Amino acid sequence: MQNKFSYKITHELGQGTLARTGTIHTPHGDIQTPAFIVVGTKATVKAMTPEQVRGVHAQAVLANAYHLYLQPGHELIDKAGGLSKFMNWDGPTFTDSGGFQVLSLGSGYKKVIDMTGTESNTPKQERRAFIDDDGVTFHSHIDGSKHRFTPELSVQIQHGIQADIMFAFDELTSLVDPYSYQQESLVRTHDWAERCVVELDRLRALHPERPYQALFGVIQGAQYEDLRRETSKLLGDMSFDGYGIGGAIEKEKIGDIVRWVNEELPKDKPKHMLGISEPDDIFAAIENGVDTFDCVSPTRVGRNGAFYTYEGRKNIKGARYYDDFTPLLEDCTCYTCQNYTRAYMHHLFKSKEILGLTLMSLHNEHFIIKLVDDIRDSIRDDSFFELKESWLKNYYEAKG
Amino acid sequence: MQNKFSYKITHELGQGTLARTGTIHTPHGDIQTPAFIVVGTKATVKAMTPEQVRGVHAQAVLANAYHLYLQPGHELIDKAGGLSKFMNWDGPTFTDSGGFQVLSLGSGYKKVIDMTGTESNTPKQERRAFIDDDGVTFHSHIDGSKHRFTPELSVQIQHGIQADIMFAFDELTSLVDPYSYQQESLVRTHDWAERCVVELDRLRALHPERPYQALFGVIQGAQYEDLRRETSKLLGDMSFDGYGIGGAIEKEKIGDIVRWVNEELPKDKPKHMLGISEPDDIFAAIENGVDTFDCVSPTRVGRNGAFYTYEGRKNIKGARYYDDFTPLLEDCTCYTCQNYTRAYMHHLFKSKEILGLTLMSLHNEHFIIKLVDDIRDSIRDDSFFELKESWLKNYYEAKG
Repeated sequence: MQNKFSYKITHELGQGTLARTGTIHTPHGDIQTPAFIVVGTKATVKAMTPEQVRGVHAQAVLANAYHLYLQPGHELIDKAGGLSKFMNWDGPTFTDSGGFQVLSLGSGYKKVIDMTGTESNTPKQERRAFIDDDGVTFHSHIDGSKHRFTPELSVQIQHGIQADIMFAFDELTSLVDPYSYQQESLVRTHDWAERCVVELDRLRALHPERPYQALFGVIQGAQYEDLRRETSKLLGDMSFDGYGIGGAIEKEKIGDIVRWVNEELPKDKPKHMLGISEPDDIFAAIENGVDTFDCVSPTRVGRNGAFYTYEGRKNIKGARYYDDFTPLLEDCTCYTCQNYTRAYMHHLFKSKEILGLTLMSLHNEHFIIKLVDDIRDSIRDDSFFELKESWLKNYYEAKG
Repeated sequence: MQNKFSYKITHELGQGTLARTGTIHTPHGDIQTPAFIVVGTKATVKAMTPEQVRGVHAQAVLANAYHLYLQPGHELIDKAGGLSKFMNWDGPTFTDSGGFQVLSLGSGYKKVIDMTGTESNTPKQERRAFIDDDGVTFHSHIDGSKHRFTPELSVQIQHGIQADIMFAFDELTSLVDPYSYQQESLVRTHDWAERCVVELDRLRALHPERPYQALFGVIQGAQYEDLRRETSKLLGDMSFDGYGIGGAIEKEKIGDIVRWVNEELPKDKPKHMLGISEPDDIFAAIENGVDTFDCVSPTRVGRNGAFYTYEGRKNIKGARYYDDFTPLLEDCTCYTCQNYTRAYMHHLFKSKEILGLTLMSLHNEHFIIKLVDDIRDSIRDDSFFELKESWLKNYYEAKG
């Protein structure tokens, strides 16, 4: 049992929604859902110790297969005893497959070595990653060196990293790709999904002593309802432990797309949405049946001085905070707000002091995690729509 | 009593040395001496939270009047309730007078506005700070703007910052300045010392409700025994609470110079040595009667990847640490060594992850503080010379 993965729905909101609360059980502990999963791309949540991550009530950390493959390499993390031990985080972990990064970062390196070996300064826009039916050839964003990911390699990497939950390797399409290409790409993503299942079964048989690693299939299909439903049915029939909802999505379509997908996928499997953290997107996704999310945003914008309040995002570098001796957010229970003033945070950012990055990341992660925790409570006591209305009104309509 | 400053010798080593243990009592708590004081130049110990600073057993933090005057300004820290409250460090604090910085950083800004208002790119070597008998005119290293420090202003700044221990404003001379200039400069430093005493008395009378701030006189005199002894007698007769030993000193003369000074200064006052952290220097200073030190080195070299071990300093970026799953230092009780491997630290530095800076600073501060704590114990149980011999032999003669 300790060794297993499971998901259990604990409450359904109903009221015409797909929102629910639940518990994901992993070998490294349980996750109460809906939950915001903090991002630790390179085996560290940027600027925070694992104790600080725990202190903001994070339940799980999501690292990245592409980044860890390039540095330090998954074999090293495997030798270290897996991600959890390597980075000193004893809770549940996820890894993203690298599918997104090989096509974004892997095509964006400015100074690349051409496939022929010729070094050149390539414009960032020029596509330097090549997809074929077997996999993706790309260039490291660090040094321009050439690499190739296949579904099998992505699973091998994620198996080496040893996260509790991994994602199938998929092809990310863009909103400008035509319908015909989205169709063609989905065939590939289905084929790759099957190859991921087969490869993980092979690795599990080779290492029966290891804790069970769950595999989530990834649903693409851009903004097309027929494609989203079709791929959801297809992957829904496969032996995945859960599902990721990915792909380029216009903000206003998030709710619809998630609903199409979740109406087709098996209800009793957990659903993760990749890369969202805007409060209205979070409400829309949860309302339509998403259980977990991840996003780099809270730490990334925090390192630039932005902080979340109930009246929207503000930036601490503003001159008005110079002598403001109130906390970032009144009544916030995070370590930063309990111990430091806006004036001190303003000073740290003006002085480019590292501590500012830590304290700001901490507040922002705490804020978004608390929002999702509050939404979870509101599903349990059937007050979801009251919370949604008042919260979003405050956040997006407040002045100043 | 709570409001007062005092120093009490608790044990003297004897054996031909001036080494002693003692207790400095300040309004923010006691310091057991000898003690290594960690540097928090801009009201933050770089990359560490106050809890992490406490966790490495730091007893006090030293901030800098020059830096805090420029950003955020001492008036703001005063309004915040003083340094301790501003930065959330509840222990004792020191401030350096800025005397060193106005002549080093204040003369080193590359793009400066000339005294006449003409903007130019001045070589870093060219002297852009001007000393007269009344004070020092210099340029901000941040934006090149023109400023002037006098003994009175330095005391006003330090009074606003509200540290428990402040230093008199002095003139820093260089080793290449001739004897005649050293003499001339000492007259100025004596005059400035008296003006600091007068100014602080005036401010104390204006704010009788405030906790007592101790004032340490600073002993200059370069490497000249007669000058060092003379200035020590002179300042020793003044009403200082303690003394700082400053100035340009060749490494091999540290022991001698400290001895000359401490043979003349009142024995029952605490002595601080500015800016040393090399283990052999620390032993030499303590042996000759120094009670406290400060230095940016442990965090500064740490941010560059260097870490202390009993066999000398090493750098984690070395390829040999790639798959080294031992801690930075075997048996070290610091948070970093208890929870992370060299392989993980290597990865963090290779990935330029902020957490690496925090973990390395923490280990290095812990190491140097522990060394001084061990020396303190060795004075108490009369094993100082055994410790000194074995420790330095290991540190400086170890191979690899």
